[in-house]
Amino acid sequence: MSIAQHFATRAARMKASEIRELLKLLDRPGILSFAGGIPDAKLFPAQAFAEAYAEIMAESASKALQYSVSEGFLPLREWIAGQMAKIGIPCDASHVLITSGSQQALDYLGKLFLSPGDTALVNWPTYLGALGAFNAYEPRYDRLDVRGNRPASDYAQAADAAGGRVKFAYLSSDFANPTGETVDRTGREALLDMAEDLDCVVLEDAAYQSLRYDGEAVPPILALELARKGDLDACRTIYCGSFSKTLSPGLRVGWVVAAQPVIQQLVLMKQAADLHSATINQMVIHKVAETCFDTHVDTIRAAYRSRRDALLDALARHMPGGVTWTRPEGGMFVWVTLPKGMDAADLLARAIAEHDLAFVPGRAFHADGSGGNTLRLSFSCADAAMIEAGMKRLGQLLRG
Amino acid sequence: MSIAQHFATRAARMKASEIRELLKLLDRPGILSFAGGIPDAKLFPAQAFAEAYAEIMAESASKALQYSVSEGFLPLREWIAGQMAKIGIPCDASHVLITSGSQQALDYLGKLFLSPGDTALVNWPTYLGALGAFNAYEPRYDRLDVRGNRPASDYAQAADAAGGRVKFAYLSSDFANPTGETVDRTGREALLDMAEDLDCVVLEDAAYQSLRYDGEAVPPILALELARKGDLDACRTIYCGSFSKTLSPGLRVGWVVAAQPVIQQLVLMKQAADLHSATINQMVIHKVAETCFDTHVDTIRAAYRSRRDALLDALARHMPGGVTWTRPEGGMFVWVTLPKGMDAADLLARAIAEHDLAFVPGRAFHADGSGGNTLRLSFSCADAAMIEAGMKRLGQLLRG
Repeated sequence: MSIAQHFATRAARMKASEIRELLKLLDRPGILSFAGGIPDAKLFPAQAFAEAYAEIMAESASKALQYSVSEGFLPLREWIAGQMAKIGIPCDASHVLITSGSQQALDYLGKLFLSPGDTALVNWPTYLGALGAFNAYEPRYDRLDVRGNRPASDYAQAADAAGGRVKFAYLSSDFANPTGETVDRTGREALLDMAEDLDCVVLEDAAYQSLRYDGEAVPPILALELARKGDLDACRTIYCGSFSKTLSPGLRVGWVVAAQPVIQQLVLMKQAADLHSATINQMVIHKVAETCFDTHVDTIRAAYRSRRDALLDALARHMPGGVTWTRPEGGMFVWVTLPKGMDAADLLARAIAEHDLAFVPGRAFHADGSGGNTLRLSFSCADAAMIEAGMKRLGQLLRG
Repeated sequence: MSIAQHFATRAARMKASEIRELLKLLDRPGILSFAGGIPDAKLFPAQAFAEAYAEIMAESASKALQYSVSEGFLPLREWIAGQMAKIGIPCDASHVLITSGSQQALDYLGKLFLSPGDTALVNWPTYLGALGAFNAYEPRYDRLDVRGNRPASDYAQAADAAGGRVKFAYLSSDFANPTGETVDRTGREALLDMAEDLDCVVLEDAAYQSLRYDGEAVPPILALELARKGDLDACRTIYCGSFSKTLSPGLRVGWVVAAQPVIQQLVLMKQAADLHSATINQMVIHKVAETCFDTHVDTIRAAYRSRRDALLDALARHMPGGVTWTRPEGGMFVWVTLPKGMDAADLLARAIAEHDLAFVPGRAFHADGSGGNTLRLSFSCADAAMIEAGMKRLGQLLRG
C-alpha cells in the first residue's frame, strides 16, 4: 500500500520549501550565508532567560509544568495589552491570544477564514511562511495592490469567478520579509478603504515592527482602523505579533490581537489543535519582557542598524550597474533585483559552488512563481567583515 | 460588519467544549472535582526540571533560545527511538517527529488525511480532544467496532454513500480517555485485519501507555503490525506518544512514530504550521528523560495505582444498584454507566449545586451525541479522603 494515496487533497499543496532545502547545504565551514533570516543568537538576553527559568522553577514549578488555558498566560496577555496601548491599540487581555510564534497565528487564521477556492490577497513577493501556512487551506492567491489602485470590485469578481470570496488581505506592514519595505500611512489607509469596500479582513503581520532603525514609526494598520471606528470589536484588522525577533524564537511565543469574536473562535481552534502554548515559556517570556524588553530591543536595534548600514554601503560599492535594492528602515532583509532575464536560483547554485556564498532566490516568495531575477539578503547574523567579503563575491559573481 | 460571516465552513464544527465550560465553574473552594483528567502537579519531577533548565541555559543557551528544525531535537528523537525499541518498535530518528503534545499530532493527522466528508472511525465514546482536532477537517464519524465484527465492506459502503472514504480508525489503545479500557491483543489483531481489508490507516493514541498499574502489557498496535510486515515503512499504523502524562504537560512535548513518508509529510505540515516545537523544552525534556524517566514513571504509577484502588473500592461501597463502572489497569479514568434514562449532565448540575461535586458527563465523548447516562471520573488528582467523600456524595446524589 502507499499511504500517500490516503492523504487529503490539501497535502498536494504542502511541499518542501526551497529555503529549507537550501539551508541544509549551508553547514559547511567557510560559507558566507546571507540566507538565514534568523536573529543573531549572540544577541539573545541569555542571562535574563537563565534567571527567569530559575525563578519560575523556584517559585511556581507546579504551575509552570502543568496544563494551562488555551487563551494563554493572563499576566503575559495583560503585558501585551499594555504594549499595544503604547502603539495606538488600547485593548485588554480579552483581545489577546497567545500563539506558538506568529507562524502559528498565520496557520490558525488561514484555518479560520479560508475554505478551498477562497481568495487570499498577498504581495508579490510576500512572506514564504505565510504562503506555506495558507496553502494547507487550498486558497487561490491574488496580487494585493497596497496603493489601492485596483478597485475592490475587480478583486471580488476574480474571486467569484474562481468559486470563492476574498477572505483577507495579508501583509507584513513593517520591514517586510522578504523586501524590507514598509507600507506608509497613506498606503495603510488606502488598504483599509479597500478592505471596507471589499468587506474583507486585513491580516497585519507585525513580526518585525519593533526593529526600526531610523525614520518615523508608522501607526499599525489596526491602530488606524481603531482610530476610525473607536471600537476594537468593530475592527476587521487582525494583528499578529511575536517575541521571536526581539527576545527569542526558540520559546515559540507570539500573539494575536483582534476583535473578541475572532479571539474567541481562535481560542476554540487552539484548544482543539494543541491545547495551549508551553506554560513555562509564557511565564518566562513574561518575566523577561517585564525586566528588560525595551532596553533589550534598543540593544539589538543598534546592532542590526550597523549591519544594515554596512550591507547597504557594501552593495553600493560592489554591485554592477542594472542591479537595484531596497533600503529598509528596519528588520533583517534587503531585497535585490537583478537585471531582467537573470535567474537568482541559477546564480545561487554558482554562488555556493564557486564563491562559498549563499542567499535566497526570490521566486519562492511569489505566489505566481514570478520574481526569478530577485533575491533576499539577510544582514541579521553578518558582521562587517563578512558583509564586505560577501558583497564583493556577489559582485564578482554578477560580473562573471 | 460581522467578521464571523467570513469564517470558513469548518468554523461551524469548532464549538466550545463542554468540559472547558465546566472547568470554569470548578475554581471555587470546597468542591470535590473528579472532572479534570490532568496529572497531579505534586508528582512532577520539578527538581529534575529545574536542574535541566539551569544546565541547558548554562551550556547551550544560544541553541536553546534559537529556531530549530521542524523534525525536532535530534537527541530527543533518538532517545524516543530507543524507548520505542523497548516496546517492540525498533526504529530510528527518521521515523520520529516531535509535536507540541500528542494533541498537536491529532490535529496534524486530521489535517493530513481528512478531506471534508471523509470518514473517521472512532469509538463511542472516544477522546473528546480527538473529536475536537478532527472536527476542523469536517469528517463524518462512524462507530469503530474494535472486535472486528463489522465487515470492512460495511464501513466502506457507508463512507462512500457519504461522499468520502474511510481514512483512518482512531483509538486510544491503553487505558483510554474516557473509559479507562484497554484493547487486548486479539482486538488489536482484529483491528489490523480490518484496516488491511478496508485499506485505511490506524491512529494509535498511546498517551497513557506508560501508566500501567497491573496486568500484562499488551504490545502496541504498531508493534503488532511491524511483527507482521517486518518493515516500519510498510506499516499503516501511526503511533502518537506524549510526555504530558509522565514528565510534564506544560512543556508541550509529544511525538509521532510512523513510516517515513508520513513523517516527511508531517514535517512539511509542522514547518508551515508553527515551524517547530519550543527548542529549549525539547532539550530539557531530553535531559530529564535521560536522567530519570523510568524511575519517575515508577513513582507516579505507584501513586496513581493507589488512587485507582481507592476509587474502585469507594465505588463498590457507595454506588447503588444498577450503576456499573470500568476497572482500568492503568491511566487516570473510571467510566461510570448509570441506569438507562438517567442524564449525567442534569446530574452534574445538581452535583455542583447541592453536593460540591464534579465529574464529566459522557455525552460529549460520543460523536453521535449518545451516552447521556454515562460519566467520567478521574482519580489522578484525588487523595483517599477526597475519593471517599466524593463517592459518598455521588451515591447520595444517585439515590436522592
